[in-house]
Amino acid sequence: MRASQFHIGTLKEAPSDAEIPSHRLMTRAGMIRKLAGGIYSYMPLGLRVIRKVEAIIREEMNRAGALELLMPMVQPAELWMESGRWEQYGPELLRLKDRHQRDFVLQPTSEEVITDIARNEIHSWRQLPKNFYHIQTKFRDERRPRFGVMRGREFTMKDAYSFDRDEAGAQKSYDAMYAAYMRIFARMGLEFRAVAADTGSIGGTRSHEFQVIADTGEDLIVYNPATQYAANMELAEAPGLIAERAAPAETLRKVATPGAARCEDVAALLGVPASKLVKTLAVAVEPEQAGAAPAVCLLLLRGDHELNEIKAGKLPGFERGFRFASDQEVAEHLGCQPGFIGPVGLARTVRVIADRTVANMSDFVCGANQADHHYAGANWARDLPEPDLVADLRNVVDGDPAPDGSGRLAIQRGIEVGHVFFLGTKYSAALKATYLDETGKPALMQMGCYGIGVTRLLGAAIEQNHDARGIVWPRALAPFEVVICPVGWGKSEAVREAASKLYEDLLAQGVDAILDDRDERPGVMFADWELIGVPVRVTIGDRGLKEGQIELQGRRDAAAEKIDVAEALPRTLEKLSPPTR
Amino acid sequence: MRASQFHIGTLKEAPSDAEIPSHRLMTRAGMIRKLAGGIYSYMPLGLRVIRKVEAIIREEMNRAGALELLMPMVQPAELWMESGRWEQYGPELLRLKDRHQRDFVLQPTSEEVITDIARNEIHSWRQLPKNFYHIQTKFRDERRPRFGVMRGREFTMKDAYSFDRDEAGAQKSYDAMYAAYMRIFARMGLEFRAVAADTGSIGGTRSHEFQVIADTGEDLIVYNPATQYAANMELAEAPGLIAERAAPAETLRKVATPGAARCEDVAALLGVPASKLVKTLAVAVEPEQAGAAPAVCLLLLRGDHELNEIKAGKLPGFERGFRFASDQEVAEHLGCQPGFIGPVGLARTVRVIADRTVANMSDFVCGANQADHHYAGANWARDLPEPDLVADLRNVVDGDPAPDGSGRLAIQRGIEVGHVFFLGTKYSAALKATYLDETGKPALMQMGCYGIGVTRLLGAAIEQNHDARGIVWPRALAPFEVVICPVGWGKSEAVREAASKLYEDLLAQGVDAILDDRDERPGVMFADWELIGVPVRVTIGDRGLKEGQIELQGRRDAAAEKIDVAEALPRTLEKLSPPTR
Repeated sequence: MRASQFHIGTLKEAPSDAEIPSHRLMTRAGMIRKLAGGIYSYMPLGLRVIRKVEAIIREEMNRAGALELLMPMVQPAELWMESGRWEQYGPELLRLKDRHQRDFVLQPTSEEVITDIARNEIHSWRQLPKNFYHIQTKFRDERRPRFGVMRGREFTMKDAYSFDRDEAGAQKSYDAMYAAYMRIFARMGLEFRAVAADTGSIGGTRSHEFQVIADTGEDLIVYNPATQYAANMELAEAPGLIAERAAPAETLRKVATPGAARCEDVAALLGVPASKLVKTLAVAVEPEQAGAAPAVCLLLLRGDHELNEIKAGKLPGFERGFRFASDQEVAEHLGCQPGFIGPVGLARTVRVIADRTVANMSDFVCGANQADHHYAGANWARDLPEPDLVADLRNVVDGDPAPDGSGRLAIQRGIEVGHVFFLGTKYSAALKATYLDETGKPALMQMGCYGIGVTRLLGAAIEQNHDARGIVWPRALAPFEVVICPVGWGKSEAVREAASKLYEDLLAQGVDAILDDRDERPGVMFADWELIGVPVRVTIGDRGLKEGQIELQGRRDAAAEKIDVAEALPRTLEKLSPPTR
Repeated sequence: MRASQFHIGTLKEAPSDAEIPSHRLMTRAGMIRKLAGGIYSYMPLGLRVIRKVEAIIREEMNRAGALELLMPMVQPAELWMESGRWEQYGPELLRLKDRHQRDFVLQPTSEEVITDIARNEIHSWRQLPKNFYHIQTKFRDERRPRFGVMRGREFTMKDAYSFDRDEAGAQKSYDAMYAAYMRIFARMGLEFRAVAADTGSIGGTRSHEFQVIADTGEDLIVYNPATQYAANMELAEAPGLIAERAAPAETLRKVATPGAARCEDVAALLGVPASKLVKTLAVAVEPEQAGAAPAVCLLLLRGDHELNEIKAGKLPGFERGFRFASDQEVAEHLGCQPGFIGPVGLARTVRVIADRTVANMSDFVCGANQADHHYAGANWARDLPEPDLVADLRNVVDGDPAPDGSGRLAIQRGIEVGHVFFLGTKYSAALKATYLDETGKPALMQMGCYGIGVTRLLGAAIEQNHDARGIVWPRALAPFEVVICPVGWGKSEAVREAASKLYEDLLAQGVDAILDDRDERPGVMFADWELIGVPVRVTIGDRGLKEGQIELQGRRDAAAEKIDVAEALPRTLEKLSPPTR
């Protein structure tokens, strides 16, 4: 491509609503333009990256035996009613009516349609397994779209769906997709991690997220640097940090803690570490009986730990949901205001659930259910009944012992770009997607679903790979692999010749090169291509050519390297794909 | 691809709503599945063809210097209000509201968004010309979707938009797209014709349709077999068939024509050819003044000719539209019922517009404005005033003299798959898309737009290329180019070996081959692949192999040819691309 034939739309200013580097850089580099909140046009530069992402995904999906098809963007409401998601899905599901007032949705994902296809197309065990995928425009009507392509409303996603005869087969399909995803993100040149994840409302028994590591990521990844263990914070198991409960050494005493409603204030006031405190959270749990008042429960955490709401949501009795108790509910059940509540001296109607670590604490500090007072020296069994339930309630913290046996856990931030789910029969049961097994009996198909956020990947790759000057693309995703910057294009025949020759030579080698024939000053060219993030730049000027030299610079290099013009092609190729040593 | 790894979904029965061959065959071959009216899923077999269509389009668009980008499917209403199309577009434009009750449309096309992009991105004449295109899902909420992918609601379209400094530049861009389209459809192996077309409501001065020739086509193409002249019936100029008006030979007389309200009945009754009759059509023309009663006009055609409504719509005074007059309007202005109206003895308030041929007729028959009566021997000037206007009002008929000088016109049917428009400043003026010209003054960009119906092309190609057994794909579009049918796959090692070897050899040559390893009977295999329409079939069986032979058959061949197994590869390649002689 010649720059004069291309559209380069670099901008000096980032949009005022851009909160994160990828949003700023994609706009400034001219990759995207906002059309409406969370809806972007992908300019030629951005689309080049999308096409490279799609090509890698497609190759690996095909290699894994998945079959590409294309399901519609506009889908009839009936199928969504059949699955129950017409009701369950929130306002993110954009509902619309056609001219005949029939209900449709803009697909946020395609479980319903693919299951409908499967029930119509797959009749016999002989046709299984099957894995269908498409790369298609999706729409989720986010309440507050933000972060550019990271949380847009219209986006491109690859979603695949596997159908198997039984769970063992479905696990094999899941493993094949897991392996394909590992290849996909590795080929893209991204630092990533596959992490065990919560299955959430999708259900099923297994799920992994594929997280691109980036400090700006919204997700917390817990991993064991010494082993393969990695899990999303939501799922990562937190160990009990105290193996055995020590015998009480202190007596229970009420201490005045005026105004100290937060753990750190209490700890400071009493001169003890926060790990000596028990933090009490009152939650209201939706009752089994519709219309009944919610039950109030206490969740106990060590003072330096944080509640993991996903784990809490899985507690027995919490199936219908929970929320933090209102001040009024707290006053009613504990006779006190929040900040000073605690598990000592409670009515037995209030259920107490202790985190594993809390259950083995001794001589701890906790709220006294009296304004501006805490208890110190509290001990289980002696001062208060044993907890009604002991459970893993907390977020893992850095340095926690790893649940897989050895070493300690570390935490890093990531951006979810892929997700694989073992679905089981959730959708096949709802839509009655059966096949005839070897004995001629109908059986439900076992399903898996596997997504990759194609447009989101662009943002994630940039969050991981950028510096003060702009984007730093991995070669596999770069819109152009090499840029040739001729200095004095309009003036020097020698420059034009050398630049054009290298350009043609690179194209002949299959390199995606761009020749900047705009006749701009070097500073303008360099700023543009550093912002755009092309991996390798070759600068060709009259002065250098007189000495038989041109300049070669990798996007991460501090300075350019002078090379012999006769070696331009091999040295550029080597810079692009350094030989492994 | 191995058939056992693919999804083959051939059906014996076509859907009951399928009215045309392509709809029946695409469904029966397993290319598409209906999800809702006019909304289809493209199964793996269908998507393979789409991808081939897209690849050819993309290559030729890029070769022509167009830049691919991607505009959103969901577009904000504001832009459509700015262009005026929010009001003008009928219910085909699907309007929807997001969760915040803001108005959006599902794009049927992207003039508004691309013009918005252009006005934001293009500032200087130095950036022009530019041509942007995308291949994207579109939606048109057809009242009555039918004919499968030929008139669907959700479909894939390539739309390109050119921006130029002036009309001369825009004409060059138009010509480049015209040339690219010629290459695109030629590469697809389709019989097609570029025809001059009406610019309709889009406006501008030039337009061509690209029509795939097919007897089932909805469009009529008028062409001169001796020259390059071709035009859509709507636009094709009809000559006046009578060069000079003959002197009156008959006297005007009123004849009784009881019950003969149609031209053919009158002609039969009077024993004259229909070409002696003048057919009178009363139309109501929307008045200039809003609220005023429509004016009634008479349009005169020769008895054997038909009105061209597009031409009538372009008559002076018809700018605001017209319709056929109601019986009441006819009675009021002509004192008669339709079927017996005519231009003789009218009040001068009724405007008379004669087709070119009618204007030179003599001694003609026409309605007498009296039930069951006609005039015979009518003559202009003598019996009635000269027409208020003479114009080309009729459809061309087969054998009409060609307007480009020599020869006679022929008519054939076609399916519109592409359309190029010279838009001028229609959208750039509405959206104020200006650039600074060489003198630093703002000027409106000159635009063109260029569409290809990607999914519609599948249907058109099949309408042109099918027989009683199924689809007959041109090689360039075939989902697979060669199918290898091993007879006795499960039983014979020799068959498996020979079939697998040829399969691998073909893949190595870059041929898109499929090996039917389903172990089906030959009849089942042959029926499937003839229905699917694979261009070349190789049959390999034990019996033939013993004699060193296999069978080769082109999809259009009456019978298979026995060839030496040692020559399997070169002969198959030759069958696929016969050497030009």
